[in-house]
Amino acid sequence: MQSDNAFSQQARDAVYQAIFTRRDVRSHFTADPLDDEVLARLLMAAHHAPSVGYMQPWNFIVIRDLERREQVRDLFLSARREELPQIADERKALYRKLKLEGICESALNLVVTCDRERSKESPLGRSHNPQMDLYSTVCAVQNFWLAARAEGIGVGWVSILDRSALKRLLAIPDHVEPIAYLCVGPVSEFAHRPDLERKGWGKRLPISDLIMSETYSGRGEQALKQIADRIMTGNGEHGG
Amino acid sequence: MQSDNAFSQQARDAVYQAIFTRRDVRSHFTADPLDDEVLARLLMAAHHAPSVGYMQPWNFIVIRDLERREQVRDLFLSARREELPQIADERKALYRKLKLEGICESALNLVVTCDRERSKESPLGRSHNPQMDLYSTVCAVQNFWLAARAEGIGVGWVSILDRSALKRLLAIPDHVEPIAYLCVGPVSEFAHRPDLERKGWGKRLPISDLIMSETYSGRGEQALKQIADRIMTGNGEHGG
Repeated sequence: MQSDNAFSQQARDAVYQAIFTRRDVRSHFTADPLDDEVLARLLMAAHHAPSVGYMQPWNFIVIRDLERREQVRDLFLSARREELPQIADERKALYRKLKLEGICESALNLVVTCDRERSKESPLGRSHNPQMDLYSTVCAVQNFWLAARAEGIGVGWVSILDRSALKRLLAIPDHVEPIAYLCVGPVSEFAHRPDLERKGWGKRLPISDLIMSETYSGRGEQALKQIADRIMTGNGEHGG
Repeated sequence: MQSDNAFSQQARDAVYQAIFTRRDVRSHFTADPLDDEVLARLLMAAHHAPSVGYMQPWNFIVIRDLERREQVRDLFLSARREELPQIADERKALYRKLKLEGICESALNLVVTCDRERSKESPLGRSHNPQMDLYSTVCAVQNFWLAARAEGIGVGWVSILDRSALKRLLAIPDHVEPIAYLCVGPVSEFAHRPDLERKGWGKRLPISDLIMSETYSGRGEQALKQIADRIMTGNGEHGG
């Protein structure tokens, strides 16, 4: 069965290729610059994300200055030291070895923020879920990331940062939340598998374990699960 | 300038087409079913989202039962009544007319949840940003949404729901958070512009207003802003 609104097989394959080969890049940034034409297209992709009540709560801070980036990397290094005690003892040595950012090596950094007051006059869709604006902003990040993959541009999301310190460093006002700190730029390659899988930190979970039917404990959808498992195996992924 | 890792022009266009023509669908669901083969591919797309510490915190509850969906729609109707007082007086009449869900008309509903304890032994990347697992789950939603656009399948995110009531209805345990309630299925068409724009609720913001340089008050990046504005105008969008 195919919808009349579906893309051609070739175009569909391209969308899946972007999704399946996107990587959280840390190690493979080159010294090449990122063209403004390409960056503008990526920002347009981000700006076309869905947003609750058409709020478009995002802003994009482009950071090129190396001194500022070094300050951000210092924040990362402190945060990583602070996080280490949370990691299970038997994984601490591996955690220390993981490369978890490309702040200074990438062509530029981009902070995607969420202005929490942009729809305060008529906050459609936020009375029961006040976090919806944060989620809209994440959708913008994912659009940016997938478009970047298609452009051959690597993106890495640095999550190990103290947000209060980051806000001070970038003069972000109280009512604005930094959602994603991204390292962005040309790369030598996109790794075949996610870094954390290659380094033995984790494996992709079997998809059939993640599908429920009707309720969170519902064990139906056997046909769907079999198809999903077959596709995952066809992708060369055997799950956990 | 083009990266060696970039897709072909045609494949890149396909990715941007998915991003630019994706819609938050409420009105255009048909009575056609959604094929399990297609749904499995969409779930695979979701499962290939980035996740903090490779946590993969998501689950997918497939809801087909119409009685259960009617109960969810009742939750929506209550929540909308409760939200109305938050809306500015001059917009209340328009708010009442907006169609904000397709719970019973779509082929099926899908709840994407976040298991907040899946990486509790070694929560890499969550010490400073405990919300990162929620954001990872949103990335999965956006992957699903874009793949669905390529398949010609409509998706609508219902944000006006009381999450506690929804958790009870779907037997979702305390440590699991429902992130997105999606209506999913074949559609008659994808609207040319977002519903909330067509109905006069809002306009797409001019992209150059959203780009900052180095800090949140930084007014640089003039070249980048000009290019972005030109692309936006070329898309037939003139901003606010």
